[in-house]
Amino acid sequence: MNIAIMCSGGDAAGMNPAIKSFVEHCLKNELVPYLIYDGFEGLIDGNIKKAFHEDVTGIMHLGGTIIRTSRSKRFYEPKYREIAYENLKEAEIDKIIILAGDGSIKGLDVFAQEYNISFVGIPTTIDNDIYGTNYCLGVDTSLNVIRNALDEIRDTSSSSKRAFVVEIMGRECGYLALITALTSGAEICVIPEIEVDLDSIEKRLSLELEHGRQYILAIVAEGTNQTEYIKNWIEETLNIETRTLVLGHVQRGGNPTVFDRLMGTEFVSFSIERLISQEEVKSVIIYKNSQFEFVDINTVTSNKYTIDEKLLKLVEKLTK
Amino acid sequence: MNIAIMCSGGDAAGMNPAIKSFVEHCLKNELVPYLIYDGFEGLIDGNIKKAFHEDVTGIMHLGGTIIRTSRSKRFYEPKYREIAYENLKEAEIDKIIILAGDGSIKGLDVFAQEYNISFVGIPTTIDNDIYGTNYCLGVDTSLNVIRNALDEIRDTSSSSKRAFVVEIMGRECGYLALITALTSGAEICVIPEIEVDLDSIEKRLSLELEHGRQYILAIVAEGTNQTEYIKNWIEETLNIETRTLVLGHVQRGGNPTVFDRLMGTEFVSFSIERLISQEEVKSVIIYKNSQFEFVDINTVTSNKYTIDEKLLKLVEKLTK
Amino acid sequence: MNIAIMCSGGDAAGMNPAIKSFVEHCLKNELVPYLIYDGFEGLIDGNIKKAFHEDVTGIMHLGGTIIRTSRSKRFYEPKYREIAYENLKEAEIDKIIILAGDGSIKGLDVFAQEYNISFVGIPTTIDNDIYGTNYCLGVDTSLNVIRNALDEIRDTSSSSKRAFVVEIMGRECGYLALITALTSGAEICVIPEIEVDLDSIEKRLSLELEHGRQYILAIVAEGTNQTEYIKNWIEETLNIETRTLVLGHVQRGGNPTVFDRLMGTEFVSFSIERLISQEEVKSVIIYKNSQFEFVDINTVTSNKYTIDEKLLKLVEKLTK
Amino acid sequence: MNIAIMCSGGDAAGMNPAIKSFVEHCLKNELVPYLIYDGFEGLIDGNIKKAFHEDVTGIMHLGGTIIRTSRSKRFYEPKYREIAYENLKEAEIDKIIILAGDGSIKGLDVFAQEYNISFVGIPTTIDNDIYGTNYCLGVDTSLNVIRNALDEIRDTSSSSKRAFVVEIMGRECGYLALITALTSGAEICVIPEIEVDLDSIEKRLSLELEHGRQYILAIVAEGTNQTEYIKNWIEETLNIETRTLVLGHVQRGGNPTVFDRLMGTEFVSFSIERLISQEEVKSVIIYKNSQFEFVDINTVTSNKYTIDEKLLKLVEKLTK
Repeated sequence: MNIAIMCSGGDAAGMNPAIKSFVEHCLKNELVPYLIYDGFEGLIDGNIKKAFHEDVTGIMHLGGTIIRTSRSKRFYEPKYREIAYENLKEAEIDKIIILAGDGSIKGLDVFAQEYNISFVGIPTTIDNDIYGTNYCLGVDTSLNVIRNALDEIRDTSSSSKRAFVVEIMGRECGYLALITALTSGAEICVIPEIEVDLDSIEKRLSLELEHGRQYILAIVAEGTNQTEYIKNWIEETLNIETRTLVLGHVQRGGNPTVFDRLMGTEFVSFSIERLISQEEVKSVIIYKNSQFEFVDINTVTSNKYTIDEKLLKLVEKLTK
Repeated sequence: MNIAIMCSGGDAAGMNPAIKSFVEHCLKNELVPYLIYDGFEGLIDGNIKKAFHEDVTGIMHLGGTIIRTSRSKRFYEPKYREIAYENLKEAEIDKIIILAGDGSIKGLDVFAQEYNISFVGIPTTIDNDIYGTNYCLGVDTSLNVIRNALDEIRDTSSSSKRAFVVEIMGRECGYLALITALTSGAEICVIPEIEVDLDSIEKRLSLELEHGRQYILAIVAEGTNQTEYIKNWIEETLNIETRTLVLGHVQRGGNPTVFDRLMGTEFVSFSIERLISQEEVKSVIIYKNSQFEFVDINTVTSNKYTIDEKLLKLVEKLTK
Repeated sequence: MNIAIMCSGGDAAGMNPAIKSFVEHCLKNELVPYLIYDGFEGLIDGNIKKAFHEDVTGIMHLGGTIIRTSRSKRFYEPKYREIAYENLKEAEIDKIIILAGDGSIKGLDVFAQEYNISFVGIPTTIDNDIYGTNYCLGVDTSLNVIRNALDEIRDTSSSSKRAFVVEIMGRECGYLALITALTSGAEICVIPEIEVDLDSIEKRLSLELEHGRQYILAIVAEGTNQTEYIKNWIEETLNIETRTLVLGHVQRGGNPTVFDRLMGTEFVSFSIERLISQEEVKSVIIYKNSQFEFVDINTVTSNKYTIDEKLLKLVEKLTK
Repeated sequence: MNIAIMCSGGDAAGMNPAIKSFVEHCLKNELVPYLIYDGFEGLIDGNIKKAFHEDVTGIMHLGGTIIRTSRSKRFYEPKYREIAYENLKEAEIDKIIILAGDGSIKGLDVFAQEYNISFVGIPTTIDNDIYGTNYCLGVDTSLNVIRNALDEIRDTSSSSKRAFVVEIMGRECGYLALITALTSGAEICVIPEIEVDLDSIEKRLSLELEHGRQYILAIVAEGTNQTEYIKNWIEETLNIETRTLVLGHVQRGGNPTVFDRLMGTEFVSFSIERLISQEEVKSVIIYKNSQFEFVDINTVTSNKYTIDEKLLKLVEKLTK
C-alpha cells in the first residue's frame, strides 16, 4: 500500500521529525512511503520519490523541511490538478498526508474530492491560527527561538536606558506575541485581539521609570501594523531612546524542540493509522484537550481561531 | 492579605518564572507576597521575607530557584512543625503555595490540617511522576536540556562506529526516558514500564549493523538500574564499542523553556485566585486535558502515575 | 588604593566577566574596587559606588553590562569634566579602567590629561574596528550569536527555493560580515573592503541554480549600505524569491562565550597590574600575536584598522 | 592533482568545517579531492572516495566528522601499511591532510617516510595538549559545550546548599579544566600542573560558607584522578552535600563555534597551498602567535605541551 507525505505553504520546525516518523512508521508496518517534494508545485511536476531509511537519517534535529515546500498558484487551475492526479496515479498513490496551514489543506481537499484521494491534513504553521486545534506543529520551536532572541535583547537593553519594540510574526493572530509577552517579562503587549489603553500604560510606566526602571520591552504582533507607531509613541511619551527589532524569518527555523518532535511523531502516526484503517478519509487531525481527533476541513476553515480567554485575561495587565 | 510561596525537594526549571509571577500577581492585586526560603528548613528557621518587585527582576530565564529548596527531616517532627507555625503566625501568613513533588505536598497537607493553613500544591518535578496531572512543572525544560546533550552525543557517536548508553533521570518513572527515546532517534529504550525483548533487539540491530548502521543510541531510565547491564550486553552481543553516559544533574537545570515559563505563570495565577476566593483550601492544582483543576492531595498520593498508553505504544518498537 | 571601572558607548558581551574579574582581583589584592555606573553620564552625576563580592555574583553568564553604559554629549564640555573630576576626587579615585571603543577611550584620555588621572582602556566593541589590537572584547560572542541566527535561517531558506540577504553590524568595518560569510557557508559576501564583481557572481550562481542549488545566502556588511540593492539585484538577476533580514541589536547581546569570558578576565588582570605598578598610566591594552601590550591612545586613533590580508584572500571567492 | 583528507583518533568539532573547506578549496583550484573514511582502518580497507560538492553540503554546523575516525592497531604493522599504500597508489593519491592528535600524525609520518607520501597534520584534539601550537582544532567548541553544562549546573547547585565536583576531559593536560574554572566562576580548580593546597582552600571556603555562600563549584581535570577524592574531602571537611558530575563524551561534540569553523577553514587552506607548492611535505601546521607555521612532527612529539604561565598564574587563586 503506497502512501505519500508533502508540505505546503510556510515551513515550520517539526516538519522533519514528522517526515522521519512517517517513513519509519510506514517501513515498520509494510507500507510503501513516498515523499512529494516542493509542495503542490512538485506534485504537478512529478517530483515524487519512494523513500528509504537513508532519506531520513539525521534529520530529527533540522528545522524547516528536507522535502521543501512552496506556494503554488498553478494548483488553483483544474488543468494542473489533473496533471497532479496523473502523477499520483502513475505512482499508485491514493493516500496523502499534508503538513500545511488551513488554506493549503483546503486546496488539497478540493483536489481530493475531484479525484477521490484520501488525505489527512496536519495543522502546521508557526502562527497557531487554525480553528479547532489547540496546537499547530512548529509553534513551540518558534516560541523558543523568539525566547532566545529576547534573552539577548534584554541584556543589551538593560545595559543602556532604552526601550525595545519587538515585532513578532503571526499574521492576523496575536498568539505568538501574547505568549512571548507573558514569558519574556515584557512591559507592553500589542495584539489584534485586545485594544491597548495607551494612557493607562503611560501612567504605569512613567511611574516605574521615575522609580528606577532601566528599560522597557514592548511586544507587538505583526498583525496590528503598529510597530513603528508604538516605537514613536514610547519615544515621545515616555522620553526614552527606543529601538525596533523585526525578528523576521529567524522565527520560522531552528532545531525542533522536544514538543514539536513528539507532536510531529504523534500527528503522523495517528494519521497513517486513520488512512489505512478507513476506506475514505478527508480529514484534518486536530489536537484538543490532550486528545487527537479527526474533523472535516470545512469545520476548520469556516470558523476563525480565537485565543483562549484565560490567556487573554493573563496578558491584560500588559495592555493597559 | 498575606500569602507566601515556597519550594521543597528537588529543584526544577519553571520555579523562578512561577515565583516571579507570584510576586507580580500579588502586587497587582493588592495582596502582600512573602517568600519562604530554603523549603521546610527555612519555614522552621523563620527564613521568611516580604517580597518586592526588585526581588524577582531578571529571574525569568534562570533555572533552579532563587528562594532555594531543601529536603527536611525535621519537618516530620511535630515540635518543628509547631515552630514553623509560630513563624507563619508572626508573619500573619495563613496561605501558602508550594512548588514540590507529591511527597512534600503531602507533608504540607499534614501541617495544614494541624494548624488550619490554606495551601495549593503545584506539582513540580522533572520526573513527571505525579498522579492526576498531565504535566509537572520543569519537565519540558529538562527534556530539552537532554535533547541538547543527545544532539551532541549523536555527532560524536556517529564519528566512530560506536554505541552510547545514556542514563536518564526519572526515579521509578520512565517518562523522561520514553520521550527522549522517541524524539532523539534512539534505537533502544529501556524503561520500568515495558519489558525489553533483547533477543528481538539483537536480531533487528545485527541486521542493521550489517547493512551499514554506524552507531547505536540506547536510552535507559535510571529506575531500571540496567545502564551497565545494557552497556555490557551491547558490547558482547552486538560487538560494538560502547560508552556509558550518565547525564546527572545537568538534567535539572537551565533556562526555562517557554512552556515552563507559561505553565509556571498559569499554575500560580490560578492558585492565587483559588486561595483568595475560597475560605479553606487544601488542594493540588493539576493540569488535565488542557484544563486546570483542583484536587485533594490524597487523590494524588493514593494513586500511582502511569504513562499514557498511546505513548507506550509508540515506543514499543524500541523495546524489541 | 582605590580603583574604578566603567563602560562607555555600545555594550558588548564580555563586559560583565571583565567587571566580575575586576572586583574579585581587587579584593584579592587589597585594592578597593569602585563601579562607575552609566558611563561618562554617571561619572558626571556622581553615580559611583564601592563594590563588593555580592555586586558581581552570578553575572558571568550575562550579556551587556550590569553597570550600564551611555553615550555622553556633556562630557565634551569642560565644565562637566570638572564636575566628573570632583566626583572622583571625593571618592579618592585616580585610577580608572574603561571598557569602550576608541572614541570613548580618546575622550577619557583628554580628561585624564587635564586632571592627572591614570587609566587603561580595554578595546570593547562588537565591530572589531580598533587599530592595533587583534581582538576587541565582545566580538566572539557576537559572531556566535550571528551563527545561531544563520543556522536557523539556513533551515528555513533551504525549505523553499529562496535567497536571504542578511545585514550584519560593524559600522565602517566588514570584519563581522567577513567572518560570518566564511563560517556560515554563504554564497555572497559584500563588505566595504572588497569591491564585488556582480557579473562574475551572476555567472557562478546561475550555473549552480541550474544544477539544483536550492537557496542562496548573501551576507552584507551594514557599512556598505547595499542590503536593499543586493536583495533587488538577486531577485531580478537570478530570478529567485529573496528576503532581507536585518539582525540588529540581537548581535550585541547574549551569554558571553568562553573566549570573551577569558579575554575579559585577562584584559582586566593585566590592566590592574599596570595601574598599580606604574606611576602614571594613560594607555590602551591591546592583544597582538597572542600577547598583551600597552600602547598610547594616539597610536590607536591616528590609524585605521584594516582586516588581515589572509582573511580578505579567503573570502575573495564569495565576492566574485 | 589528487589530494585526500582523513581523520584519526578522537573526533572533535571543527573536523566537518575543515572537510567542507577542503573539498571546496580543491574544486575551486582544480584539484581533485578525496575523502578517506574511518581513519587508518579505512585507509587499509580502501574506503577512499572522490568528493563532490554534494558530499559536504550542510555539514558546517555538525559536530564530529562525517568521514568518521578510528583508532587502528593494524596500522602499526608494516603489512597493513603496505596495503594502505597500494590503495593510495590505485587512487593516484600521494598527498594527504590528516586531522588528528600528535600520536596519529606521528603514525602517518612513519608511513609517509616509507612510501614517500606528502602530508600535513592538522593538530586536532579537544585536549589542547600538542606541543608547538597555541591551538588545537575543537578546543573552543568543547569549552563552550562545557560552559553550557556548567551554566545549568550552577542553577541547580545554587537552588540547594550544595557542592558540585565536575570532572573535565583532557587526558594528562589540565588546559580545559583550567579555562573552565577561570570562566565558570568556580571556587576550586584541580589540575595536574598545580599542586592544590587543601588547607588553604578549607580556610577560604569555610569563611565564605559562614558568610552566606550557598554553593561550591570544583573543577577537576580527569588527569588528576582526584574527582572522588575531592568530593569526599569537600563533604567531610566543609560539611556540605556534594555531587559529582562526569561530563564525558558530551564534551566532544556539538555545533562547531565560529572560531573552530574559521580555524578549520584556515588550517586546511594553508595546508593545501603547502602541499601543492612544495615537492615534499611532511609537516604539522601549527598556530603560534596568530601565525600559521609548518614544523616537523618530531619537534612536536619530542616535546611536552605546557600551559602558558600567565594562565597558570591567573588560576592559582583557585588552587589554594
